[in-house]
Amino acid sequence: MSDDPVRIGLLGKGTVGGAFAELIAERAGAIEAATGRRPLVSGVLTRSEGDFGQILEQADVIVELIGGVDPARDHVEQALRAGKPVVTANKQLLAQHGDELFALARESGVQLRFEAAVAGVIPIVRVIQESFGATEISRVFGIVNGTTNFILSEMASTGASYEDVLDRAQKLGYAEADPTEDVNGADAAAKMAILARLAFHTPVAFDQVVYEGIETIQPDDLAYAKELDLSLKLLGIAERRGGGISVRVFPCFLYGGHPLAPVGGPFNAVMVEAPAITEVTMSGPGAGGVQTASAVLGDLVSIVSGEAPVHEPIAELEVVSDVSSSFYLHLEVADQPGVLARIAQVLGDNGVSVKSVVQRGIGDDARLVMVVHECLESRFAAALAAIGELDDMRSAPRSIRVIEEEDFA
Amino acid sequence: MSDDPVRIGLLGKGTVGGAFAELIAERAGAIEAATGRRPLVSGVLTRSEGDFGQILEQADVIVELIGGVDPARDHVEQALRAGKPVVTANKQLLAQHGDELFALARESGVQLRFEAAVAGVIPIVRVIQESFGATEISRVFGIVNGTTNFILSEMASTGASYEDVLDRAQKLGYAEADPTEDVNGADAAAKMAILARLAFHTPVAFDQVVYEGIETIQPDDLAYAKELDLSLKLLGIAERRGGGISVRVFPCFLYGGHPLAPVGGPFNAVMVEAPAITEVTMSGPGAGGVQTASAVLGDLVSIVSGEAPVHEPIAELEVVSDVSSSFYLHLEVADQPGVLARIAQVLGDNGVSVKSVVQRGIGDDARLVMVVHECLESRFAAALAAIGELDDMRSAPRSIRVIEEEDFA
Repeated sequence: MSDDPVRIGLLGKGTVGGAFAELIAERAGAIEAATGRRPLVSGVLTRSEGDFGQILEQADVIVELIGGVDPARDHVEQALRAGKPVVTANKQLLAQHGDELFALARESGVQLRFEAAVAGVIPIVRVIQESFGATEISRVFGIVNGTTNFILSEMASTGASYEDVLDRAQKLGYAEADPTEDVNGADAAAKMAILARLAFHTPVAFDQVVYEGIETIQPDDLAYAKELDLSLKLLGIAERRGGGISVRVFPCFLYGGHPLAPVGGPFNAVMVEAPAITEVTMSGPGAGGVQTASAVLGDLVSIVSGEAPVHEPIAELEVVSDVSSSFYLHLEVADQPGVLARIAQVLGDNGVSVKSVVQRGIGDDARLVMVVHECLESRFAAALAAIGELDDMRSAPRSIRVIEEEDFA
Repeated sequence: MSDDPVRIGLLGKGTVGGAFAELIAERAGAIEAATGRRPLVSGVLTRSEGDFGQILEQADVIVELIGGVDPARDHVEQALRAGKPVVTANKQLLAQHGDELFALARESGVQLRFEAAVAGVIPIVRVIQESFGATEISRVFGIVNGTTNFILSEMASTGASYEDVLDRAQKLGYAEADPTEDVNGADAAAKMAILARLAFHTPVAFDQVVYEGIETIQPDDLAYAKELDLSLKLLGIAERRGGGISVRVFPCFLYGGHPLAPVGGPFNAVMVEAPAITEVTMSGPGAGGVQTASAVLGDLVSIVSGEAPVHEPIAELEVVSDVSSSFYLHLEVADQPGVLARIAQVLGDNGVSVKSVVQRGIGDDARLVMVVHECLESRFAAALAAIGELDDMRSAPRSIRVIEEEDFA
């Protein structure tokens, strides 16, 4: 126990920063009980007030809640160089410059914590770094963007179009005025880069993550999926593949029995798999001012309490891109004899085998909806290109990945 | 980084101890990468070999995997007094003597970690103590016994009797030869005492936990429940009630939409609720040698890496017992006019209101199955006693608690 308060330099006082300042005041007694030191916000930097140099000098720890790369990066670097521990909720900063920042933190011998940067209030960073810090993790995957999960849940339950549901999400505050980074998968990709780096102890840059968004999802796809007992999620997957790793984000169907299938609305959920733990699933709200501030508070308490491992890469794993997947395939076809046979022939020629088919409509409305077994994505892409060239097609084929239930049995 | 290995004194080499020794050997490189020190098992104590005094002297950290109170308690106390940190998976020891052991660890300034004592591989202890260490937790609840969850899942899916399914669980290794502590709720109660202490920073003794088991559950109850879209779990609940807390274990129905409803088989799942985090749910395998050993390894890595908060009570909260619950009620009644009216009258007289009723069978097989709205348990018990005295009853009324969906909306 010490009589000195722990002085907090707070950078940013928007939604999360404001909620954090309130939470600190409200939980001061509990923080003192947990750490032995009373918290004190010794300085606040906003666009209109505060001097960073002065705030840094007067602080024991810096809490960075500005967001974006600049000027957050410079402030975090200065703080680490000055030997001050940092808590940040800034996923862009970590996804793009995490390797340099982690190295700087190790050199300076101070902590850099970032629980709030990934999966909201779910303590996935701590669990991977600490609980499973010496575990050989084989896969980390899940729903790490609440906006898209809300949109997909709403589309599935109401049958409404992507545009209408996005509009509704914006009105409810589940989507930002400019939702680009959420709906195109970039936000989830940044988070998966961070998780992959922690899980596999290897450098992973944001631009090594292959990502797709949900902008082209049709209500049709969700309706057919229901018949096949599938539910659609924007999934991030980081996994070991051969001697390397694969880190990807894409919309994907899950069978009804999958642990992530029931996760709806703006929630996030992450699964960690390893031979020694089997699997652990964690879910909770993906965002929200006070929820994100709570994650920041947990990091602050840990920093004041004592030391913890600072992330260090121990390997340089290859990031592979051609992996095996199962796919849902939606084809608008001309209603003429032999069309299914011709399509099956193309699939077979490319080594793609069909698991289930639903045929719908007649004449100008004829469609084939199928699920194919797992195959190399390059083979499936070749089959898809060949199908697209058939005279039978009335529009371009659409495909969405499927996670097969058996993978998790 | 240090060239000295971290010397581990391993007490017990049964299923978990053996798996732990193998895991340490297998993950030595990863442990050194995470902590800067190579692990070395410097001594092993079993019933037939090893001298505790010598093992203690030669160890930097003690890993207690003997189980049971004696001699584990004495060994852990000696280790803490000697200033050696301890990792244990021993729930009985912590539930019964945790308060003394935590106090001893604080006095000696060393860590006592016990992730593996609760909910298998799910890192709930770390998350409550560290991520949510300064959060005002309102409720911690979930499925913390894998044996009973397996039995209830099997009964629900096969319609088989408790006895038949228990027999099957024993053959599959999901239940021990003597399953008493699991099926009567004592094991879950010990775990909930530990979680309540951590969540509410108050001393909680094992004998303050009110618990019931699953031995009297009938296949009938599960069949009727299916019609009402309910699934049965053995639930542990620790929550704030007024100015005090309530800690209980009981079989309980959950509505289909509840996050814990899909958790089946030998899995565990725990939810933490707090105003600032909304809710976080964690699930994973509840037991298994290597899974439990993994949880022990996570604790070991944290101890070698650095310091963490040592649990200290900051309040002495009253443990209240009469709380409000919703109930399922199963009545075998004589098939005579006015029976439902008489039962409804008794319920109404006691302030218990009915939510839904299913009537089944005729003559000697007539049954009433109902769900009642939340009411004080003492009132429901009074109503149940009065119903039991009606001439209409062909056998004693059976009741099971229900968690209403709206509680989690």
